[in-house]
Amino acid sequence: MARVTIWNEYRQERSDDRVRAVYPDGIHAALAEGLTQAGFDVRVATLDEPEHGLTDEVLAATDVLTWWGHAAHGEVRDEIVERVQQRVLTGMGLVVLHSGHHSKIFRRLMGTSCDLKWREAGEHQRVWVVDPAHPIAQRLGESFVVDHEEMYGEHFDIPAPDRLVFVSWFPGGEVFRSGCCFERGRGRIFYFQPGHETYATYFDANVRRVIANAVRWAAQPQGAQPTFGRREPLEPV
Amino acid sequence: MARVTIWNEYRQERSDDRVRAVYPDGIHAALAEGLTQAGFDVRVATLDEPEHGLTDEVLAATDVLTWWGHAAHGEVRDEIVERVQQRVLTGMGLVVLHSGHHSKIFRRLMGTSCDLKWREAGEHQRVWVVDPAHPIAQRLGESFVVDHEEMYGEHFDIPAPDRLVFVSWFPGGEVFRSGCCFERGRGRIFYFQPGHETYATYFDANVRRVIANAVRWAAQPQGAQPTFGRREPLEPV
Amino acid sequence: MARVTIWNEYRQERSDDRVRAVYPDGIHAALAEGLTQAGFDVRVATLDEPEHGLTDEVLAATDVLTWWGHAAHGEVRDEIVERVQQRVLTGMGLVVLHSGHHSKIFRRLMGTSCDLKWREAGEHQRVWVVDPAHPIAQRLGESFVVDHEEMYGEHFDIPAPDRLVFVSWFPGGEVFRSGCCFERGRGRIFYFQPGHETYATYFDANVRRVIANAVRWAAQPQGAQPTFGRREPLEPV
Amino acid sequence: MARVTIWNEYRQERSDDRVRAVYPDGIHAALAEGLTQAGFDVRVATLDEPEHGLTDEVLAATDVLTWWGHAAHGEVRDEIVERVQQRVLTGMGLVVLHSGHHSKIFRRLMGTSCDLKWREAGEHQRVWVVDPAHPIAQRLGESFVVDHEEMYGEHFDIPAPDRLVFVSWFPGGEVFRSGCCFERGRGRIFYFQPGHETYATYFDANVRRVIANAVRWAAQPQGAQPTFGRREPLEPV
Repeated sequence: MARVTIWNEYRQERSDDRVRAVYPDGIHAALAEGLTQAGFDVRVATLDEPEHGLTDEVLAATDVLTWWGHAAHGEVRDEIVERVQQRVLTGMGLVVLHSGHHSKIFRRLMGTSCDLKWREAGEHQRVWVVDPAHPIAQRLGESFVVDHEEMYGEHFDIPAPDRLVFVSWFPGGEVFRSGCCFERGRGRIFYFQPGHETYATYFDANVRRVIANAVRWAAQPQGAQPTFGRREPLEPV
Repeated sequence: MARVTIWNEYRQERSDDRVRAVYPDGIHAALAEGLTQAGFDVRVATLDEPEHGLTDEVLAATDVLTWWGHAAHGEVRDEIVERVQQRVLTGMGLVVLHSGHHSKIFRRLMGTSCDLKWREAGEHQRVWVVDPAHPIAQRLGESFVVDHEEMYGEHFDIPAPDRLVFVSWFPGGEVFRSGCCFERGRGRIFYFQPGHETYATYFDANVRRVIANAVRWAAQPQGAQPTFGRREPLEPV
Repeated sequence: MARVTIWNEYRQERSDDRVRAVYPDGIHAALAEGLTQAGFDVRVATLDEPEHGLTDEVLAATDVLTWWGHAAHGEVRDEIVERVQQRVLTGMGLVVLHSGHHSKIFRRLMGTSCDLKWREAGEHQRVWVVDPAHPIAQRLGESFVVDHEEMYGEHFDIPAPDRLVFVSWFPGGEVFRSGCCFERGRGRIFYFQPGHETYATYFDANVRRVIANAVRWAAQPQGAQPTFGRREPLEPV
Repeated sequence: MARVTIWNEYRQERSDDRVRAVYPDGIHAALAEGLTQAGFDVRVATLDEPEHGLTDEVLAATDVLTWWGHAAHGEVRDEIVERVQQRVLTGMGLVVLHSGHHSKIFRRLMGTSCDLKWREAGEHQRVWVVDPAHPIAQRLGESFVVDHEEMYGEHFDIPAPDRLVFVSWFPGGEVFRSGCCFERGRGRIFYFQPGHETYATYFDANVRRVIANAVRWAAQPQGAQPTFGRREPLEPV
């Protein structure tokens, strides 16, 4: 069973009463509960630990890393971002959640600004499956509602996803590509939009199912291992 | 474990001594041996059975269908092709092998001619992994050689694959997109080029690994179930 | 300048007062006006002409064909569909409009059911650009509104578009991939969702701009010409 | 007509007799000759100019930038790389040539290592068109030969191209995705593999046609302009 490291900024849960009220043990605890119930081997790492909890040893023992950050993207040290990127390129899965769209690691892997529109108004959103053959859509309905969320709207400045799994509808007139698959190097990346810190999204059954499906999809520990550099011919020339 | 139906035209093994010498029990037997060893629940269907062995009951009990045909594509009845297409669109996986590129079912699912270049000269080919993160490339080297094969060369008139996993090199100067993933409806389709009837390709360990990986990837029995047709609003309008 | 043939079923404009009120000269006339103003060389063909107006000569002299049909898809003769498909595969562009999603030609080129959800209630829709680098999005705003349209909702059972240019929002809670690019053979295909026969959509300036951009994008009369079949080696083997 | 800035490292032509013998006026001069003949408005910028010749003014007046670098990627200043990246994301086209695969700007836009295999042995290569509908393949044959080139082989560690136009064959047994389209932000990017500094590749008629086609494809000065940030609802909520 895949080994998951849940990375959480873990600041607003301690500094903001509204966030603590929803996630008293941290957003990571809600995510860990869901992924543990789904059968994964789960550990947690947070921003304020040494090396943000992401030592070489931790990353080497991680099949899939989930990433939640919001207010302190700039405090993530560049050498740790570089380390995570290299680990993704050599095969670790990465599941980027909600405001993680603006994290250094996601922007670096995408090569774009990852900008979007947003509105924090507790609106509901409807998430539509547009790729029902995809493993991340397994055991979901054709759409589901998240009761209270931050609106994220197009344009979302990302590369065209390698697979687009979800598109979301918001009551204010916006749409959003809310479930996006990417492959980079030997690593698989999934971006999933729901999960604002003041709403109980990570306790939602559909959201938990998506994240578990995404972890399962992103875990590919036995991929082919390419090599690079100068080569002699394989055939007589 | 996924339930696989191996479909084989099964004509040349009975009519052509060169083919019988390689596949005395039929190409399906070699495929069945490999997939059984990989742990799948395997059955066989052939062209000359009633309904080509592809009754509604068989298809309903099939998670992934593999397809090998060559000399008698035209004898596959249109209503059976239609039945297989519908089953793919509702979630059955399909692995199309070698000369199956010109089968009615593959052409119908692709919408293109599926034409290509070819030469039957027993040349070796080198298969390169170009998507090492893909599950179909799991536990392979970065390339492998098939000792004797029919050359298939570009241009291969297919839609751009949803994922391109393998590109092959042939000594005569040709390249070929030899491992191609498609999603159509709720079904997953993989085309894999090696497997001419006069060469022992389906006994090759790498080829068997690819086909087993492809079956595992294509089996998605719990996909989201879209509905269609006239709808009332989900929101107050 | 590209030569465009506008194909129209042209039945409801003659049989249904509500449609005639909007398109007294036929939907084709509104489309022809827009494309002529955009500088294209335009002709018209309709269902009730001999060979549906799509003779070999007409198709040979057509760079881009636009297709609007709704009530009489079944009356389009299969040999004409086959002829159009072959012409697309050898390089003619095809712009499929609105209810043309269920035309024989589109379904044949896609290989899927092309089913979707729908509601005819005159709701407005907002069309969002999700691929601002695409030529079909040139000189548009980041979104635009069509005042009255038929709702088309996901899931839309098509292959994943080669490029997804527009996603639409509807007030009833639905989203739709409303601008989709495909390449098949040497031909380029664009599906564009707005255009129900009882609304004045094809007089809308943004809609006309999209269709003109799509025609320009789909016209590729000088593409590379692949050849197929048995080949001698290009290199000494 | 699109305004092109040809960026060249322009070191080896001055320091290495073998390179000077092929490109006495610099690689940029050969590229400029071809693009000028194709009708583009061409200027040149090189590494050793102030700001590497890529001031804000130059970039603002550039529709498409071509990039050739090899021995001095590390000397390109990070703030200039950042500036070019921002300009691509707001709509400038970028054509990356040969050893530019390892340039800072290409790696930053891709998010991957962009590593590959290579061998400098003056072998010929055959370039196959695998997307004949693409504008970059216009007026080419179905394949063409470059007489002497550096071998570049898979695996090429890039994101899956948004469109794959060319795949190359090398006599030593290698294949390479040698013509790759990407969209990032509002900018279009094309990577094209031929062009080692010791071979006369940029005088080759087919290579020049590809580069001119790529410049034409990448120039999209009127793309839709997305906006980002906090938004009020567009609909009553």
